Amino acid sequence: MIGTPLLPEIRELIEQRNFSALQRLFGDWLPVDLAELISDLPESEQAILFRLLPKDIATETFEYLDLDAQENLLKALTQKDVTHILNSMSADDRTALLEELPGAVVQELLKLLSFKEFKIAKTLLAYSEGSVGRLMSPDCLSVKKDWDVDHVLTYIRTFGHESETLNVIYVVDDFGKLTGELLSRELLLSAPENKVEEIISKDKIITLTATQDQKDALEAFKRYDKVALPVVDSNGYLIGIVTVDDMLDVAEEEETEEIQKFGAVEALEEPYMDLPILQLVKKRAGWLVILFIGEMLTASALAFFQDELAKAIVLATFIPLIISSGGNSGSQAATLIIRSLSIGEITIRDWWQVMKREILSGLALGSLLGMIGVLRVIIWAMIIGHLTITWVYVSITIGVSLLGIVLFGTLTGSMLPLLLKRLGLDPATSSAPFVATLVDVTGIVIYFSVASLILGGILL
Amino acid sequence: MIGTPLLPEIRELIEQRNFSALQRLFGDWLPVDLAELISDLPESEQAILFRLLPKDIATETFEYLDLDAQENLLKALTQKDVTHILNSMSADDRTALLEELPGAVVQELLKLLSFKEFKIAKTLLAYSEGSVGRLMSPDCLSVKKDWDVDHVLTYIRTFGHESETLNVIYVVDDFGKLTGELLSRELLLSAPENKVEEIISKDKIITLTATQDQKDALEAFKRYDKVALPVVDSNGYLIGIVTVDDMLDVAEEEETEEIQKFGAVEALEEPYMDLPILQLVKKRAGWLVILFIGEMLTASALAFFQDELAKAIVLATFIPLIISSGGNSGSQAATLIIRSLSIGEITIRDWWQVMKREILSGLALGSLLGMIGVLRVIIWAMIIGHLTITWVYVSITIGVSLLGIVLFGTLTGSMLPLLLKRLGLDPATSSAPFVATLVDVTGIVIYFSVASLILGGILL
Repeated sequence: MIGTPLLPEIRELIEQRNFSALQRLFGDWLPVDLAELISDLPESEQAILFRLLPKDIATETFEYLDLDAQENLLKALTQKDVTHILNSMSADDRTALLEELPGAVVQELLKLLSFKEFKIAKTLLAYSEGSVGRLMSPDCLSVKKDWDVDHVLTYIRTFGHESETLNVIYVVDDFGKLTGELLSRELLLSAPENKVEEIISKDKIITLTATQDQKDALEAFKRYDKVALPVVDSNGYLIGIVTVDDMLDVAEEEETEEIQKFGAVEALEEPYMDLPILQLVKKRAGWLVILFIGEMLTASALAFFQDELAKAIVLATFIPLIISSGGNSGSQAATLIIRSLSIGEITIRDWWQVMKREILSGLALGSLLGMIGVLRVIIWAMIIGHLTITWVYVSITIGVSLLGIVLFGTLTGSMLPLLLKRLGLDPATSSAPFVATLVDVTGIVIYFSVASLILGGILL
Repeated sequence: MIGTPLLPEIRELIEQRNFSALQRLFGDWLPVDLAELISDLPESEQAILFRLLPKDIATETFEYLDLDAQENLLKALTQKDVTHILNSMSADDRTALLEELPGAVVQELLKLLSFKEFKIAKTLLAYSEGSVGRLMSPDCLSVKKDWDVDHVLTYIRTFGHESETLNVIYVVDDFGKLTGELLSRELLLSAPENKVEEIISKDKIITLTATQDQKDALEAFKRYDKVALPVVDSNGYLIGIVTVDDMLDVAEEEETEEIQKFGAVEALEEPYMDLPILQLVKKRAGWLVILFIGEMLTASALAFFQDELAKAIVLATFIPLIISSGGNSGSQAATLIIRSLSIGEITIRDWWQVMKREILSGLALGSLLGMIGVLRVIIWAMIIGHLTITWVYVSITIGVSLLGIVLFGTLTGSMLPLLLKRLGLDPATSSAPFVATLVDVTGIVIYFSVASLILGGILL
């Protein structure tokens, strides 16, 4: 929100070592804005600015920095500062940082932690990447059901300062087993003498496990509109909490993966700029080669129609136009259906409904492109000055082929994701380039079959 | 989570009018699960089941229903039930329902509201679609800064029951102007005699306005990790609140729009199944026709090379293979860059970095496909049994063209989104089909230029 425009000014102040002016300048900035500013600075200047921050916001600012800046600061700051930051940052953000660092560095950093934080960090890092455990914070408050509200309030005032959230407090039995959840809302609305068991949420509790996929957690948050969900072990004991603010980031990662599949790229899993070129090429080469090999069938198909091609070179000039129309309409249909499947607007059971809609759409779109195609050929022939009856037949060939190919593309694009889903595969595999390749090959067959029918005895 | 497997059993119970068994069966279900079940039933049975719900969860269940089921119930339920639901449902969900109904129906329904709810509904509907106002709930609690915590707690217990959230409470001055925010966390952690002004959040308050785009609200929530944001009017007076649970839905809508643009479809704005076919065709025809007209240039380009084509029909057979490789690599690059731009991983200023990476990637991927292409031609020639020196030259032509076209596709795909952004246009406009079309035309020119160079005097 602030960052860039002030950057030159701030770098000048850093150069002049005018620290008091700097401190005045960002006196009332939010940690997130400070973090953006620091990330924008050259590495050598990041630590200078970071050291000027008041202690009480330093750790929070650090949490908002991107991973590169965090790594750089870990190297540039004194061991005392690093120790303070690592011990005071929230457990889930610390896990996110540590999981990106090389093993040897992590071992060094873990030594700086207090015994309590060391144990927490070790436990969280033991969960696999992409699991709920990596997002979880073990800092959550639990109370007993026979306490009264006044007791709970006193308990919170004494022990609640470290807790990741106080919007939900969990109720456990004497053995630590999760038995209920108490919303801070109910706590605030109830009289001090009410018992916890009277105001406890009566709904069935939704829980996560630490080994679950983060995607499942996202689904649960979306479905149940929660601000936090408890994480339990296999015996139902409360071991941590996941809060909704982490979910917007998970949602973003999920969507990035989905979008990358659409473009026929394997999920990068790291920011574009951070990925080494070789990795970047590898993520793209797989699909590109598969598509290339698939598309080779077009050459075989055309070799099969070589005689027709030799007799009527004019047919060759329209090949790209005709097959690309099939690919484009197929990509459109696939995009619509994959997205609708992914957000649950349609299910496999709706296939017949979808097919009816796509046949109608394909006929409409195919007729439209077909008519434009016919006009294009006629006008072209008139311009080059010999509109003969042959050209009229060619134009009809183009028009009919377009209708057939657009209809076929639309059907392929819409049915393929449903078929993949039915087979238990990921519908998003039928990316735009994938559908286009499939339709290209069939497009050539349709085109030359229509040509044989209409132009047989005339040109062929 | 439940729904489908139980559906036949439940429909049988409905048929038998065995209401007590039904009530036992879904006794401890959550409203969201009940809503899913009801949405899955045929329209005629939805109201029967809905009427069996206990009063205290009926409204919440109604809020979770999809719009079709909601509309159906509004018709099927008694006026008394409808009146109860409309008056008790939360203001933001009611707005979402009313904005989908025809004007005449809305007028009828508004008459059922109490004077207070009528005023609220009218105000919210006055904001334009997609604005923060449509998401906002006017039910939020405000306190004064000279109150002590004990006073605030008493105030909440008395007036807080209607409030959309109690996780944040707003502090206003005597005129209702927003001056601060009080987190329930601070309220719970502070001693009863503390003053509000002592525990108020010291950070600058982030506010929304009712006329702002919902996309801006989403950005603010992501950036500042908030559970709720206050909405103020142009004079800074508090008029409502937006909560983070609505944001996951906004995020989903935004992503759907982005993904549809990727597939060269205009944003549908309604679920796929709900859109009338004519609308569906209209949303797709625009881009399809633009792409078709663009692709016509391939026909012109090929007409230009007609003599070469006539001399070497074999060149024609490889046209789809070669140009589609450019399109696919361009789609991949565009996908990566558009997404990275959209989530802020890269900015226009990084164009040179991106270009360097894409030149290297393009060379690597182009060489790979080029080599496969050369092999394909050689092996093919060996299979049909006349591997002559001409075929070797043809294979080199294919290989070199592939290298050039993949490199060109990669560069076009990566630079076009940056260029569009620089011009103030939406980078996502350079969808996969758009890039593919652009690269197809240039691909033909590259292909035949390479062919003239290498095959000149041999085949041409």
